[in-house]
Amino acid sequence: MTKFLTVLVDCPDEKGLIYKITGILYNRGLNIIKNREFVDADSNRFFMRTEVEGEANVPSLQEELVSVLPQQSKIKVVSDRRKKLVILVTKENHCLGDLLVRNHFKEWNADILAVIGNYDVLKNFTEKFDIPFHFVDAAETSRDAHEQALMKVINEYAPDYLVLAKYMRVLTPEFVKHYEERIINIHHSFLPAFMGGHPYRQAYLRGVKIIGATAHFVNNNLDEGPIICQNVIPVDHSQNAADMARAGKDIEKIVLAQSLKLVLEDRVMLSGNKTVVL
Amino acid sequence: MTKFLTVLVDCPDEKGLIYKITGILYNRGLNIIKNREFVDADSNRFFMRTEVEGEANVPSLQEELVSVLPQQSKIKVVSDRRKKLVILVTKENHCLGDLLVRNHFKEWNADILAVIGNYDVLKNFTEKFDIPFHFVDAAETSRDAHEQALMKVINEYAPDYLVLAKYMRVLTPEFVKHYEERIINIHHSFLPAFMGGHPYRQAYLRGVKIIGATAHFVNNNLDEGPIICQNVIPVDHSQNAADMARAGKDIEKIVLAQSLKLVLEDRVMLSGNKTVVL
Amino acid sequence: MTKFLTVLVDCPDEKGLIYKITGILYNRGLNIIKNREFVDADSNRFFMRTEVEGEANVPSLQEELVSVLPQQSKIKVVSDRRKKLVILVTKENHCLGDLLVRNHFKEWNADILAVIGNYDVLKNFTEKFDIPFHFVDAAETSRDAHEQALMKVINEYAPDYLVLAKYMRVLTPEFVKHYEERIINIHHSFLPAFMGGHPYRQAYLRGVKIIGATAHFVNNNLDEGPIICQNVIPVDHSQNAADMARAGKDIEKIVLAQSLKLVLEDRVMLSGNKTVVL
Amino acid sequence: MTKFLTVLVDCPDEKGLIYKITGILYNRGLNIIKNREFVDADSNRFFMRTEVEGEANVPSLQEELVSVLPQQSKIKVVSDRRKKLVILVTKENHCLGDLLVRNHFKEWNADILAVIGNYDVLKNFTEKFDIPFHFVDAAETSRDAHEQALMKVINEYAPDYLVLAKYMRVLTPEFVKHYEERIINIHHSFLPAFMGGHPYRQAYLRGVKIIGATAHFVNNNLDEGPIICQNVIPVDHSQNAADMARAGKDIEKIVLAQSLKLVLEDRVMLSGNKTVVL
Repeated sequence: MTKFLTVLVDCPDEKGLIYKITGILYNRGLNIIKNREFVDADSNRFFMRTEVEGEANVPSLQEELVSVLPQQSKIKVVSDRRKKLVILVTKENHCLGDLLVRNHFKEWNADILAVIGNYDVLKNFTEKFDIPFHFVDAAETSRDAHEQALMKVINEYAPDYLVLAKYMRVLTPEFVKHYEERIINIHHSFLPAFMGGHPYRQAYLRGVKIIGATAHFVNNNLDEGPIICQNVIPVDHSQNAADMARAGKDIEKIVLAQSLKLVLEDRVMLSGNKTVVL
Repeated sequence: MTKFLTVLVDCPDEKGLIYKITGILYNRGLNIIKNREFVDADSNRFFMRTEVEGEANVPSLQEELVSVLPQQSKIKVVSDRRKKLVILVTKENHCLGDLLVRNHFKEWNADILAVIGNYDVLKNFTEKFDIPFHFVDAAETSRDAHEQALMKVINEYAPDYLVLAKYMRVLTPEFVKHYEERIINIHHSFLPAFMGGHPYRQAYLRGVKIIGATAHFVNNNLDEGPIICQNVIPVDHSQNAADMARAGKDIEKIVLAQSLKLVLEDRVMLSGNKTVVL
Repeated sequence: MTKFLTVLVDCPDEKGLIYKITGILYNRGLNIIKNREFVDADSNRFFMRTEVEGEANVPSLQEELVSVLPQQSKIKVVSDRRKKLVILVTKENHCLGDLLVRNHFKEWNADILAVIGNYDVLKNFTEKFDIPFHFVDAAETSRDAHEQALMKVINEYAPDYLVLAKYMRVLTPEFVKHYEERIINIHHSFLPAFMGGHPYRQAYLRGVKIIGATAHFVNNNLDEGPIICQNVIPVDHSQNAADMARAGKDIEKIVLAQSLKLVLEDRVMLSGNKTVVL
Repeated sequence: MTKFLTVLVDCPDEKGLIYKITGILYNRGLNIIKNREFVDADSNRFFMRTEVEGEANVPSLQEELVSVLPQQSKIKVVSDRRKKLVILVTKENHCLGDLLVRNHFKEWNADILAVIGNYDVLKNFTEKFDIPFHFVDAAETSRDAHEQALMKVINEYAPDYLVLAKYMRVLTPEFVKHYEERIINIHHSFLPAFMGGHPYRQAYLRGVKIIGATAHFVNNNLDEGPIICQNVIPVDHSQNAADMARAGKDIEKIVLAQSLKLVLEDRVMLSGNKTVVL
């Protein structure tokens, strides 16, 4: 029995879907608070996100939805339990600082359980907020051994999402597949411009008049996962690569936080390599 | 019998509305292409805009919707006929130029039937596009007589909407009530800052770092009608009032065109003095 | 003797000013790193900001500049000593959190010496960063007595600037004149729209499509001091006043930090009630 | 003898440049209206743009500047004569329409002398504005022959700048070198993202949340010339490639017009493959 639920449907499009789904909710006495749909004409998939209020038997609701929707439907009925987060960092502090302050003041329906760094420079800072910091050194060890060590620490916390808050090491496909659709990264460029390393240096050399930041889910291809949010700021010839990096920090941290908020509210669905934000 | 329809509902909120409305559409074999809803918690009103495809008897559909929805519902079923526009101008050319080019290349499902000016400086320009221009002089005549003359010209064209494309005279409540919820104005500030005359001069004197433009429906109170779109651009100390006015023209014309597009697509509903854009 | 200096000139405009000023710098062997000028045509004042590198006798340089510039010139030669800040807060944490993180990681050539609150809810948070927090209660005391108590604490730290990081009490002209041109406030609207209290509530009721934040120097008239930076974000009908307030926090903290950076770099000069940012 | 001049200097950086240049202007009784400088620390070049008012012998002024500035300086003294433009188009009308309206109302200190199209669909529209339209067919002819034909038409007008207002054919290096640093193109993406063809299709497939437009000088490498202006707008999952293309038109035309304004005011200097906008 629950008070607030979010119903997420991703299924082949056909006539009458909204009618059928809202009929089930109506007959169970559930009140729709918010409802958004989208039909992806290219893939012919229907996406729907509905927030309802009322007493519901979740497994029974889920079962009834399955019974009326087409085959190959993905249906999720999500309760409003607090979600669990683990943060990965390297040396930069601005995204971590922003996330820790928000977490401290309980801005989300979620909790940061731990921070993991491949350097230890952010350990003291993290611990000020009474969050455990784990230093998992990547030096003098194989990539594989390092990722095994990471996973060991991560899995103790059983997080819903991993947040790469300027984690500057590439993760292998083997690692990524353990946390499929659950790793969120912030990249310091308006992707797909300036993929890979040193995007501000690349931006400076290209002479762009706008720089950006992109939060995305991580998949097997570096910087090519589904984009959640992007934002940009103007720059000009007077700013060198270091100036751009400094200026960019403010949008990096805001874009990461906005994306995380959307994900934590179950507003981000995946449609191939794209996100549908409802 | 029609092929494409837009169903607009504005009614007191209650459980089951989406279910009931989509049920009617489903049973008539209509396919929902786009659907958006919104509940205004303050006024407890439910707003819904649904685009459907298929053969429909419009009066019968409208009647059936009335029969299942609460009293005090406003229901509109809109066909895709081309809408009719009349433009009012004074001396400035940028908004008019932008609208005439868009109209010439048939960017909207609508047609500009005529342009009316209280000066004649834009007459030759307008006529290049084979659109009639009516000079309705406001000099040496009473406000009342001028508005009577305006209405005489306007009503010959029976427009769906009047667009004030930098029309620099205040319209009386008597005039406005003849075209209720059908007059769109562009104001050259981010309202409610700098209402009334010379907003760029006001902005310059205040030393703002951002200037804006606002498109809104006209009601009885000058510059206080429901806002449709706003946009802004950065300015700095090096720009005087004339520089700001020049820079502002680009957002004025874009904001007006964007608002008009939304209105012509029947995406703008009114909720008190606010717009709901679905 | 100094290594880096910033020369600030604000004087009546006349021919040859740049030539005379740069001549003095050249003859002293100083290298110009950055130079920006502006002439305010309305007030006929010339503004110049020049960063130089080299060994300089500051009083002698200042004296020589005075000797060649017109009467009624304001000339400042600023060394690169670290500046001192005191922060005032009420209950909201987002601006304070952002400033404390930046200060902790030494983002500026300045230090936060203390935080003062008229509530004590941010005391524990502030002390995590090893910054003293002073609770100066405003309850059950006169406005005058409260401001006297504030000034007593502030003056112990002899700050260069006071930063009102969502300090929600109005300061009297008597208080303000003790820190003339040295108090920076963040207001949660794009001023001059929505001055005074509850700007997000006002914005929601007006149905705006953009909300903003404004950092400004505080003068005697509430929310009417010289604007340093402004920024905005789009909103829509689906956001109520509380949603807007939440969304606005991100731009409030960024705009405040950007303004503070400009002020700390001596890039903000005053021209009447406007700022010239060089 | 001239009344308004713009002095442009691009030279190796050294101490005393501003002093020397402004000294020459001061001794000739010229009044500096606007002055901006920039030192590119990477290339160690100094850039300066100065607007002066007064009577000046241009060749003599130029000669005196050469005599005091380092070798390898580029010095231009530009009078305020009206500049000449030729526009190249293919089929899209929005950029051309915007430029023709601005030209018609004499927004710039420049004139459009002719429009050239590789299709004739914009001929009637162009001629409404009393501007000659030349159809230079690219079908059934070699690239070389087509460019020869283009150049023949262009050179009759001896334009200062060529503006590619959605000209959808690649120009060869041979063609480009005839108009070095004088061809301005608008590309419908925020370069360097989505170079080459169909950028909106690429943007849609990548699932970006922001699309953009870039105006740049054309050099030998397609879409890689020095960027003058860029701007962006938000998009979301509900917009397909055609929707993005439609939405993008508004920023394309504004970015192109803004860039052209900067170029026509002699505010854009080149530093390698980057622009310095003073």
